[in-house]
Amino acid sequence: MMELPKGTRDFMPEDKILRDDIVKTLKKNFELFGYNPLETPALEMYETLASKYAGGGEILKETYSLKDNADRKLGLRYDLTVPFARVIAMNPQLKMPFKRYQIDKVWRDGPIKLGRYREFWQCDCDVVGSSSMIADAELIALASKVFDDLDLEVTLYFNNRKLLNSILDYCGIKKSVQDDAIISIDKLKKIGFDGVKKELVEKGIADDNVEKIKEVFGTDGSNLENLKSILKNKEGLEEIEKLMNYLKEFKVSGAQLDISLARGLAYYTGTVYEVFLKSSEISSSLAAGGRYDNMIGLLAGKKENVPAIGISFGLDVISDAIKMIKKEKSRKTVVKVFIIPIKAENESVKLLSDLRNSGVNADMDLIGRGISKNLNYANQFGIPFVIIIGEDEIKKGKFKLRDMSSGEEKDLGKEELINFLSES
Amino acid sequence: MMELPKGTRDFMPEDKILRDDIVKTLKKNFELFGYNPLETPALEMYETLASKYAGGGEILKETYSLKDNADRKLGLRYDLTVPFARVIAMNPQLKMPFKRYQIDKVWRDGPIKLGRYREFWQCDCDVVGSSSMIADAELIALASKVFDDLDLEVTLYFNNRKLLNSILDYCGIKKSVQDDAIISIDKLKKIGFDGVKKELVEKGIADDNVEKIKEVFGTDGSNLENLKSILKNKEGLEEIEKLMNYLKEFKVSGAQLDISLARGLAYYTGTVYEVFLKSSEISSSLAAGGRYDNMIGLLAGKKENVPAIGISFGLDVISDAIKMIKKEKSRKTVVKVFIIPIKAENESVKLLSDLRNSGVNADMDLIGRGISKNLNYANQFGIPFVIIIGEDEIKKGKFKLRDMSSGEEKDLGKEELINFLSES
Repeated sequence: MMELPKGTRDFMPEDKILRDDIVKTLKKNFELFGYNPLETPALEMYETLASKYAGGGEILKETYSLKDNADRKLGLRYDLTVPFARVIAMNPQLKMPFKRYQIDKVWRDGPIKLGRYREFWQCDCDVVGSSSMIADAELIALASKVFDDLDLEVTLYFNNRKLLNSILDYCGIKKSVQDDAIISIDKLKKIGFDGVKKELVEKGIADDNVEKIKEVFGTDGSNLENLKSILKNKEGLEEIEKLMNYLKEFKVSGAQLDISLARGLAYYTGTVYEVFLKSSEISSSLAAGGRYDNMIGLLAGKKENVPAIGISFGLDVISDAIKMIKKEKSRKTVVKVFIIPIKAENESVKLLSDLRNSGVNADMDLIGRGISKNLNYANQFGIPFVIIIGEDEIKKGKFKLRDMSSGEEKDLGKEELINFLSES
Repeated sequence: MMELPKGTRDFMPEDKILRDDIVKTLKKNFELFGYNPLETPALEMYETLASKYAGGGEILKETYSLKDNADRKLGLRYDLTVPFARVIAMNPQLKMPFKRYQIDKVWRDGPIKLGRYREFWQCDCDVVGSSSMIADAELIALASKVFDDLDLEVTLYFNNRKLLNSILDYCGIKKSVQDDAIISIDKLKKIGFDGVKKELVEKGIADDNVEKIKEVFGTDGSNLENLKSILKNKEGLEEIEKLMNYLKEFKVSGAQLDISLARGLAYYTGTVYEVFLKSSEISSSLAAGGRYDNMIGLLAGKKENVPAIGISFGLDVISDAIKMIKKEKSRKTVVKVFIIPIKAENESVKLLSDLRNSGVNADMDLIGRGISKNLNYANQFGIPFVIIIGEDEIKKGKFKLRDMSSGEEKDLGKEELINFLSES
């Protein structure tokens, strides 16, 4: 019996229609914000994916690799950032800043959990070549607008890795263990301060220093005035202030500073952000990203740093969120009207053609069933309207339009019918 | 140095924008014609791809195969039809007819020629579960409307495999060699009758029979009255007549019967069609397909036949055709207006945000360049408009809008500016 590879899925129309709608909203907004579409192949040279500055050993274990007929080692990409860096490396003529988006599949042969798949989509927007906090602010503004358009209530948290590092300086944490400490502090919301403390102690951080961490993160840590008075290195703070100024100009409301936010990944160098659903039923972030000023330059083999910042939207989790919150809105079909001919095929084809030419998604019976079977078919696919055409209807020049949800029927002339369906 | 796997490509914005536009047109029309979107994974079980009734030995040699971490053999799909048949097999509850489209990547590790790649797109529309000639006609009508919308002048040729077989019966060709003969006759337009004759003789077909083939195909073979008088088995002819009747109701003009058209592949069982550019610069077909009433049932392991018909549009060749014919129309960027601030960043961000909220794709300088460098940047990306904002402009409440192609400049108030850009 046929089966699917583990961790892969078919998206039947009901799911695919919703996913297409989400992608359309993402695409529209990415373009409004001046990002251009880019497509890279699913297959990359394995060497590119395994590059020293790419995803690293853990992710490489989850990379699908294969050989082509000429025995070259290839791999399926595990993200869209490494291929993007390759594009930057291979196209030195590209004018900077370069803003691109890519909405595409990636593959990871890892453990399958709830909401984790082996073939899944990433929706990435990145700017390369600008250090301006306007770029950081516009990506948060973009996320805000996307979720407004999707009608999802979210909270946007932001922070800055430089700020985090300067706080850890203040707490007496050595540079060499700051990244480790940050990974624990990032879990503050999930595991509480006691959990974080346990991890910090296990990582060999002294009690005094842990107490200082508690002092800053435990109370009103996001008080900028307080931070200003205690921190020596103010670069992170200044970036945060610039960011907040631009967020105001972008009229982003509801974005909050959260000084414990770090976004696990070690490669972030400045601003980081993460978007959560307000309703607590989904705890994964719907979108996240940040500034990574070192990676692209290293990956692309450039001498100087190449500043970059990006955001990634999770198509699966957004789709789950919409399904959960707005059950009534899901469509099973793109078809708006279904024509049932009763010995009137030519006339039906003619009307079908006119409807389509007027922009109405239309279909008709293609196997010569009776009315009740056809109504049943239209009903099961959730097609909102049905038109019945028989000899009588043709003679009168009026067609019977049935609203499948109310059961209401109307007799309409051809033009009225087309106008009604193309407007409703 | 980084490189791409052979036969794969990056699509930089200029190409990707055009491809996205084509896909949008396809998607819109597929949905107008009542086809629903479906997505299947790129990875399939190798066993599915190697199924007896699937692509066959030749295509299997070109199939990328790989093992997952649990040592299961997987493959990258080489078409969208086999995965579709798998979906039909795995979802016996699906109501028939089932109409779906899929626009997605496929992979074939074959020889690379001009216009042939190892990773490429297929854009497929199929109906399963209907034998009605309305389905056949609507797919030709769909192709006609797609190319109208794309503004490409094409010729649509159609034929019927049953008709071809009955003509070969008339010519005295044995059933067992008819498929072989058809593969040669299909080349009539490419290699002329002398070429076809040579192949037929090589295939062991007697001179008398070759002469009869010449008689039918050489002259006015598409004369239905003549065919009616000479053919014993009239099923193919009757299907053609029904098809032509429905084509008329669909108001398809310019579709022509071509009795030599066979579409190489052996699995077609009835109607076949192929679309060519009228301008002769591209000889590959832009779209093609036909009826294959046996394959899905066999692949899906059903006892009875499952009638099916489909069409496949070639994204690469359509994109090449548009680039060739309409050079002036290609856009290098989705961005419509680029803002250049002169010490007016906050004001620029505010306007940027207002433009985007009004539906105008807008961007601004993100690295603090001078005016002439910024104009150069906008020019190289082909951004049509630029707005310059300095202290003077803010004081007056008028912004300088520059049309980059004409060089013309206008001073406009904020509202006028937004109205102009969101309408033009």
